[in-house]
Amino acid sequence: MIHVKTKIDRPSADAITQLSKFSSATVHEAQGRKGALSSRIKPIDRSMSFCGPAVTVRCAPRDNLMLQVAIHYAQAGDVVLVSAGEFDEAGTFGDVLGNAMKAKGLAAMVTDSGVRDTQDLIELGLPVFSGSVSIKGTVKETIGPINHPVVIGDEIIYPGDILLGDADGVVVVRKDEVDDVIRLSQERDDAERDLIRRYHDGGTTLELCNLTEVLKAKGLLVEED
Amino acid sequence: MIHVKTKIDRPSADAITQLSKFSSATVHEAQGRKGALSSRIKPIDRSMSFCGPAVTVRCAPRDNLMLQVAIHYAQAGDVVLVSAGEFDEAGTFGDVLGNAMKAKGLAAMVTDSGVRDTQDLIELGLPVFSGSVSIKGTVKETIGPINHPVVIGDEIIYPGDILLGDADGVVVVRKDEVDDVIRLSQERDDAERDLIRRYHDGGTTLELCNLTEVLKAKGLLVEED
Amino acid sequence: MIHVKTKIDRPSADAITQLSKFSSATVHEAQGRKGALSSRIKPIDRSMSFCGPAVTVRCAPRDNLMLQVAIHYAQAGDVVLVSAGEFDEAGTFGDVLGNAMKAKGLAAMVTDSGVRDTQDLIELGLPVFSGSVSIKGTVKETIGPINHPVVIGDEIIYPGDILLGDADGVVVVRKDEVDDVIRLSQERDDAERDLIRRYHDGGTTLELCNLTEVLKAKGLLVEED
Amino acid sequence: MIHVKTKIDRPSADAITQLSKFSSATVHEAQGRKGALSSRIKPIDRSMSFCGPAVTVRCAPRDNLMLQVAIHYAQAGDVVLVSAGEFDEAGTFGDVLGNAMKAKGLAAMVTDSGVRDTQDLIELGLPVFSGSVSIKGTVKETIGPINHPVVIGDEIIYPGDILLGDADGVVVVRKDEVDDVIRLSQERDDAERDLIRRYHDGGTTLELCNLTEVLKAKGLLVEED
Amino acid sequence: MIHVKTKIDRPSADAITQLSKFSSATVHEAQGRKGALSSRIKPIDRSMSFCGPAVTVRCAPRDNLMLQVAIHYAQAGDVVLVSAGEFDEAGTFGDVLGNAMKAKGLAAMVTDSGVRDTQDLIELGLPVFSGSVSIKGTVKETIGPINHPVVIGDEIIYPGDILLGDADGVVVVRKDEVDDVIRLSQERDDAERDLIRRYHDGGTTLELCNLTEVLKAKGLLVEED
Amino acid sequence: MIHVKTKIDRPSADAITQLSKFSSATVHEAQGRKGALSSRIKPIDRSMSFCGPAVTVRCAPRDNLMLQVAIHYAQAGDVVLVSAGEFDEAGTFGDVLGNAMKAKGLAAMVTDSGVRDTQDLIELGLPVFSGSVSIKGTVKETIGPINHPVVIGDEIIYPGDILLGDADGVVVVRKDEVDDVIRLSQERDDAERDLIRRYHDGGTTLELCNLTEVLKAKGLLVEED
Repeated sequence: MIHVKTKIDRPSADAITQLSKFSSATVHEAQGRKGALSSRIKPIDRSMSFCGPAVTVRCAPRDNLMLQVAIHYAQAGDVVLVSAGEFDEAGTFGDVLGNAMKAKGLAAMVTDSGVRDTQDLIELGLPVFSGSVSIKGTVKETIGPINHPVVIGDEIIYPGDILLGDADGVVVVRKDEVDDVIRLSQERDDAERDLIRRYHDGGTTLELCNLTEVLKAKGLLVEED
Repeated sequence: MIHVKTKIDRPSADAITQLSKFSSATVHEAQGRKGALSSRIKPIDRSMSFCGPAVTVRCAPRDNLMLQVAIHYAQAGDVVLVSAGEFDEAGTFGDVLGNAMKAKGLAAMVTDSGVRDTQDLIELGLPVFSGSVSIKGTVKETIGPINHPVVIGDEIIYPGDILLGDADGVVVVRKDEVDDVIRLSQERDDAERDLIRRYHDGGTTLELCNLTEVLKAKGLLVEED
Repeated sequence: MIHVKTKIDRPSADAITQLSKFSSATVHEAQGRKGALSSRIKPIDRSMSFCGPAVTVRCAPRDNLMLQVAIHYAQAGDVVLVSAGEFDEAGTFGDVLGNAMKAKGLAAMVTDSGVRDTQDLIELGLPVFSGSVSIKGTVKETIGPINHPVVIGDEIIYPGDILLGDADGVVVVRKDEVDDVIRLSQERDDAERDLIRRYHDGGTTLELCNLTEVLKAKGLLVEED
Repeated sequence: MIHVKTKIDRPSADAITQLSKFSSATVHEAQGRKGALSSRIKPIDRSMSFCGPAVTVRCAPRDNLMLQVAIHYAQAGDVVLVSAGEFDEAGTFGDVLGNAMKAKGLAAMVTDSGVRDTQDLIELGLPVFSGSVSIKGTVKETIGPINHPVVIGDEIIYPGDILLGDADGVVVVRKDEVDDVIRLSQERDDAERDLIRRYHDGGTTLELCNLTEVLKAKGLLVEED
Repeated sequence: MIHVKTKIDRPSADAITQLSKFSSATVHEAQGRKGALSSRIKPIDRSMSFCGPAVTVRCAPRDNLMLQVAIHYAQAGDVVLVSAGEFDEAGTFGDVLGNAMKAKGLAAMVTDSGVRDTQDLIELGLPVFSGSVSIKGTVKETIGPINHPVVIGDEIIYPGDILLGDADGVVVVRKDEVDDVIRLSQERDDAERDLIRRYHDGGTTLELCNLTEVLKAKGLLVEED
Repeated sequence: MIHVKTKIDRPSADAITQLSKFSSATVHEAQGRKGALSSRIKPIDRSMSFCGPAVTVRCAPRDNLMLQVAIHYAQAGDVVLVSAGEFDEAGTFGDVLGNAMKAKGLAAMVTDSGVRDTQDLIELGLPVFSGSVSIKGTVKETIGPINHPVVIGDEIIYPGDILLGDADGVVVVRKDEVDDVIRLSQERDDAERDLIRRYHDGGTTLELCNLTEVLKAKGLLVEED
């Protein structure tokens, strides 16, 4: 097996730019309620957000050898995605590697394991999303795959898929679906804005979502006045 | 069974105003150490707080149909309380419903499941307390009870009970006990302020809590100088 | 058994001052990747940090009697460390005891159980690190040991050991190792600063960490251009 | 507040006998998918099962004072149900109280906390259902309510409600719904037996559940041969 | 998107027979320490074991519509693998569907969610492996993919991959690697049997694993006699 | 630092024999409610029990190098106790090492991590107690301490301390307290047997535990007939 695939198809810069205008929740809904990574994965600071193609790497728990390799092969704008067994008690990534990523112009770092040096990373301004924060360092022992499909929560991420993250978490968009997702996200955003306006104009949840008939059909009984 | 009870007894506006001056921890202690909802339930922003009568709703996990109905029947000042099986991986509530609630003047939203669009909700200024933050949307399939008793953690909440929340979490006060709780909370606040003053005047934990005799009776052995 | 040991050896004030310049992650690495308490233990506000000798106390879950006694016997600069069975659903410590500690000049409070009154404690400016935040109060029933060894996560802490905490968590340094740890932490900090500079000068992870040969020896296969 | 209610309405012995023929899953479905206690609650031996009216008691975590009181007031055939904050690390109940219950002819013991002496309890032949098994004993300090409503998982149990448990867990049936539930459970059992027979006669899941049209309406696309 | 792929490549019956002689732990090691599903997935009875090709299905949490469809399209000898978001509080599968599977000669059922009717399923003799046991039934609302790649824990399973399960859990073997894995498993079994014999002949862990030099190189210091 | 201490003080064989007659729960109570390891640690088969002096070893998570060393230095009758960070997803120990232990006459194996080959281990007849069962193997990379104090749950175990395990879990007895604990356990067993007899003679929980006055003093209110 070739461990490290160096050639991946990336989406166009234009697609990234357009997709990055939407929130993770909007994109998740727009593409048919799929693609959300585990709710465990959150930014180390609520104001962080990012959008970019995934360079995928699988590390053994408590071992960041392959993460170092992944940063080497990643390109400006890439998001490094580390699947490491949801291991909470390791800081797989800290400010030294954060600076290595920043120096290369990488877009963000996402892992289902832990990170450390969080105050320094926040000051550095690199979006970092993780399952935990842990002081404990890692070994550099175990080789593994780069740019093969990886798993975070119950989603599969393929190299070159687009990852988008904000305060709510991270969502993945398949590269060949991105144009549809951009269009559908825009439609959803427009519809939501309209819906919000109508709520402020006095509309109610039952009217605006056409629920009255649905509820009646399901047999809902409401106390009479 | 009538699913939706539309008539609930609410406490007086004056009781809400008075109770809202106290912290959740003070109220919990004042009413005899009871009423705290699970520590999983926290505000999406630490500065959020609220006080108001509960409109209770039970949703199936990953299903917000009845939450939409509950918002319809809730009144200005009400707190919508959603019991949904402590399901972390669903955003039961987001900025569209947040605007629907804000437009109606509702006081807050509390759920043991997840919410999403948290940045928008913080900007909206609606207090939102939840067990998790999740991107994943919900279906609208399952009918269920509104303004029947519901469970959050190991507490039962009856419709019209008062919920009070702050950075520490949420506490419930029975409607018919609220006057006593206000009085006892005030007494406790006064006593605590006095105790704090005496600590700053040099009092010690053993003296001020009269622990010396208690500890002796329990057989505590202390190393001699 | 003597429950309360009142005489403990503390490190020098100078050692505390010097060690306090380093981050928890640096200290953990410098002393050979050991001493990190469980990642559950975090500050109630990310900006909090501290360094000081441990006064150790074991409380029964949901019982803070011995914490009161520990504060009595602690001295200015001490860190009160409470092992209480990792019980999430109790606020073992709040603003009254926070003021008692502040009035005595104690350095910080660390517990594997919960705390409450977090907004007040943040305003008070006392570093508080805990496993959870819970409204629920405690009883004062059970006596137990003070300044005996205690456990947090999978680390043993002896009275007089130095605890250092920041946004990433808490690390323990043995009293008789502190001089070595200060020296090794400084060396590590210097090396990391140098490494970061070289990343910004264009160095890569494989070069700067000398991984190319290591990876080859482990049999890593990389896709050719 | 009266802590201990001594008079509760129990269902008829005949209703208990009839309901006890059904499995917990059948009863849960028959009454409209409700009443299942948390999946954490399991028998200490898979062969255990029981059916009887609930005597409800709320204990503080790690405190079995009120359980002792509840056993005093319970009657032959009753199920003692202990809500104790889902605290795993306490053995609230062991072989001494097990013998006290057996001597009185009580039907079963259910708790969301832990039990101990499990080998002895299995030999004793008393059905015991719990959230954990823990060696650690409890204190006898805190008074609390008996035969008030209590919470297990996200279900409320009222005194006199019927609890039924087997290898899958425990389900609660409201006293005034028991006759309907018996009838509906019998209908469901008959229908399931018929369905199983038809599967063995070669029926398929799509035919027997009439799913073909449903799936078509939902837009399911199936690869053609 | 085609939801249901009906044509999958299955390994030869001979490969299944040969692989089924090995334990899950042996296979995991033999193929280079990979392929183990989450340790949450266990048989409902310790004596259960199975080996067969995977028919993969993704269900929404608390929704078994697509499982019914998957059973329809599965063939004798297949293992039905259900990814359903690791949702503990649902019994996705029970004795009716168990009989449907048994009637078709399917080999086993594996899910990261819950199952129910466990006593009946054990008597039925169908190997069932799950993340939990829960009384609670499911809805039949959400369509989804069959025989697309799915995720369990942090492993991806492709349709036609071989699943092998026993008391320790479940491991996946890629279809195109099965011949190598059978050979390597046999070598490992032989080597282990030899090692066990040598331990009983008086060999020690340091000698038989050649650790003495390794430990010396790593700097291990041993107390002298 | 000397990593491996080879000389430890063991309790007398007679003390082991006498202590082994009692259950873990009895011993825990007899020595003043202390010493119980985490409730996560359970035998892989409920019928397993053991009693013997601890040989303590700390392994890195997912690394069993030092366990191999510990078995080398352990003596017949010893219990090998492995602290490995409560890591669930690794089988630190299996049937090969099980045979190595059995061949040397070691008494039992206890770990807060996982084990595998559980069917073989049960047939082998070696008591094995663990926090989980996992297929996944370990590396042999990291050196660490043997016969230094280790932590399991929130208990410290010193080499030579006595460990006693049964279906309820594992308890530790300090070597210098074992004679007292044997005497107190016998007294407790006698008292419990007497209490059980009196329950079967018709005694009630309130009478036999003298709770009536206690409850009155605490203010318990009981509904009158």
